[in-house]
Amino acid sequence: MSSDKNINYGDFFRAAVDGVRSEGRYRVFQDIRRKRGAFPSATWYPNETTERAITVWCSNDYLGMGQNECVIEAVKSAVDQAGTGSGGTRNISGTTHYHVQLEKELAELHSKDAALVMTSGYVANEATLGVMSKILPGLIIFSDEMNHASMISGIQRAQKTGVCEKRIFKHNDLADLEAKLKAAPAGAPKLIAFESVYSMDADIAPIEQICDLADKYNALTYIDEVHAVGMYGAKGGGICEQRGLMPRVDIIQGTLAKAYGMIGGYIAADTHITDAVRSLASGFIFTTSIPPSTAAGALRSVKVLKISPHIREQHQERANALKARFRAAGFPFIDGETHIVPLMVGDPVKCKAISDALIEHFGLYVQPINFPTVPRGTERLRFTPSPFHTDAMMDELMSALDQVWVEFGLKRVKAA
Amino acid sequence: MSSDKNINYGDFFRAAVDGVRSEGRYRVFQDIRRKRGAFPSATWYPNETTERAITVWCSNDYLGMGQNECVIEAVKSAVDQAGTGSGGTRNISGTTHYHVQLEKELAELHSKDAALVMTSGYVANEATLGVMSKILPGLIIFSDEMNHASMISGIQRAQKTGVCEKRIFKHNDLADLEAKLKAAPAGAPKLIAFESVYSMDADIAPIEQICDLADKYNALTYIDEVHAVGMYGAKGGGICEQRGLMPRVDIIQGTLAKAYGMIGGYIAADTHITDAVRSLASGFIFTTSIPPSTAAGALRSVKVLKISPHIREQHQERANALKARFRAAGFPFIDGETHIVPLMVGDPVKCKAISDALIEHFGLYVQPINFPTVPRGTERLRFTPSPFHTDAMMDELMSALDQVWVEFGLKRVKAA
Repeated sequence: MSSDKNINYGDFFRAAVDGVRSEGRYRVFQDIRRKRGAFPSATWYPNETTERAITVWCSNDYLGMGQNECVIEAVKSAVDQAGTGSGGTRNISGTTHYHVQLEKELAELHSKDAALVMTSGYVANEATLGVMSKILPGLIIFSDEMNHASMISGIQRAQKTGVCEKRIFKHNDLADLEAKLKAAPAGAPKLIAFESVYSMDADIAPIEQICDLADKYNALTYIDEVHAVGMYGAKGGGICEQRGLMPRVDIIQGTLAKAYGMIGGYIAADTHITDAVRSLASGFIFTTSIPPSTAAGALRSVKVLKISPHIREQHQERANALKARFRAAGFPFIDGETHIVPLMVGDPVKCKAISDALIEHFGLYVQPINFPTVPRGTERLRFTPSPFHTDAMMDELMSALDQVWVEFGLKRVKAA
Repeated sequence: MSSDKNINYGDFFRAAVDGVRSEGRYRVFQDIRRKRGAFPSATWYPNETTERAITVWCSNDYLGMGQNECVIEAVKSAVDQAGTGSGGTRNISGTTHYHVQLEKELAELHSKDAALVMTSGYVANEATLGVMSKILPGLIIFSDEMNHASMISGIQRAQKTGVCEKRIFKHNDLADLEAKLKAAPAGAPKLIAFESVYSMDADIAPIEQICDLADKYNALTYIDEVHAVGMYGAKGGGICEQRGLMPRVDIIQGTLAKAYGMIGGYIAADTHITDAVRSLASGFIFTTSIPPSTAAGALRSVKVLKISPHIREQHQERANALKARFRAAGFPFIDGETHIVPLMVGDPVKCKAISDALIEHFGLYVQPINFPTVPRGTERLRFTPSPFHTDAMMDELMSALDQVWVEFGLKRVKAA
């Protein structure tokens, strides 16, 4: 960009970043290296010449499956058999036997006819919701106000590519959802889009009652289970499986990148829905498929977790152990019913500073969660204890938090 | 979906698929398994009980790097060191040392300050173009009419999330581009979005002249080099490197999923642009980063191809060998200046039938390319000869094409 241009583009890009920085929400990515077999231990690279040992407290590899020996073996074996990349879109040489087997397994996991694997959970939400207005002209999408950015992006896409309206309902608020369903034309196609576990507040949607409303007002249901699959239900099918609701939800979306320890996302639904999405969704069609080894690793991970209720129990036990400590110490955390433990700070600059202090002085890594991931004023440290976080690690964390809480002048609530 | 609903949603999904089917463009994904070390040989699974040996003629693993021993070794070694998934978004524990090193390498490859790796080339286009209107309010994007679906999606996103206009210019048509630039308000921010190698027509954009127009009308330039990186330029930096134009293009987008044999995409640009995209683009922020092993494999692949001009030469030699045979036999192919060899059929049903005949009777796999990937009436078989496609394989292909060309009553052009 030469400086004699009459618009100085550089100024615009600088200003955009300065805006983020002035709000105290400029993101610095911590450069780490996970240690296979030693999770949640990792190496931190604060600069090019320094390495330090840390404990990771904010990974979404919730169950540590990223270091599971069966999964690692499946990945390496597939690389040995088939090489690295898939070499094509699903349509142009990029459908391998590994993809076919994985989709079959995921369909079975969710008791649906079929599943479609995409490159990420983000893409699965964006591509699937985005194509709905093409299939259902005049569609009205009812979207929980706390839905993830990828669902919002998918709904925006649906509005750009077809006739589609959006109605945002209050978070998990059945009365508001019903009022909005009732106000919409009876003959219009409708879809209710929501999540099972909300990642940042650790709460769960009233799925059954939402399905009741969907029946009453003749709407399709679309649920994002990315923070639940692998972790809830007898076989890891998510909250819908746990509550016996899988048949009642039309489209279940999940991820392979969190509890399953790989990367990629998917939807599971009936034959006609999956075939329509497969045939029409741009974000599914025009992109290289996940590598054979990724599909193989994910397949193994799903199979392992299907028969591993003890890992899920241990996960919940560890989450409860951390919550009990936070409760006893009077730390202001969201005491939800899931494995996610958000510790509230309520200020973006302090939140970042505390995170920096924890990693620098104590070797404890928990990333600050600021706007736009959470609303302004609700900045937090989001802890995700895994089955591999020991009591000793929790003692270490509590001791460090005690110190920084005083240092930063933060309040405690009345201890339980 | 219960049948007593007043809207039968199933009918809509069925109708959407029937529409695709009635146009003869219903896609059947061939289930294959690549054989590492034997590329382009693979196994085809026509049904659950049958396996057959095939030769793949339509892979975008253009240089066979998906089976390169150094790349495979890098992937397996990173899995051994760090496990499988990254476990988080780039901001929340998902930035590993492998990602940092890869971005440094990509920035260097394109002689830019910085690079940002995303989950795919599709996402890189969509997220980057999509965020431009937030940074540059009132932006006008000038888009080549043949741009890839992901760029179109990114521009749509830019229009949905900010004030942004789109002007489509005729493919590679400098006069039309200039007319449209001239007609736009001088003070409005402008961006010209185009590709270097167009994948389906195998042609190359007049990059230098487009940059001249960008200078004249004070526009940013954004180039998609996904079908060129690794394959053109002294170090594999793409057509921009080959033509000495890297400093003249503001944002270079590339992929790790084609010549580099992995998965993932990226942009390379100056510090301010990359930092703004990093800080603001939804599709970059809110998604799990690529696995450490994917980053490690891609890093190795970029490094290997930097010092392997002989692989690029062999690639071009093989493409020219196939073109010479097509020319001599009078097959109606697009005789372009790149490694892609599109053989024109011009009918979606015949195109699919020929592809089926080739794989079923001859074990030769080339996927039919129909609408919406290419315009209706220009349906084709797109051949991508790699350095590993031998003369014997080409003899086999020519013999098979001779037979199907007669069988389907297709015309030849005058042999050269």
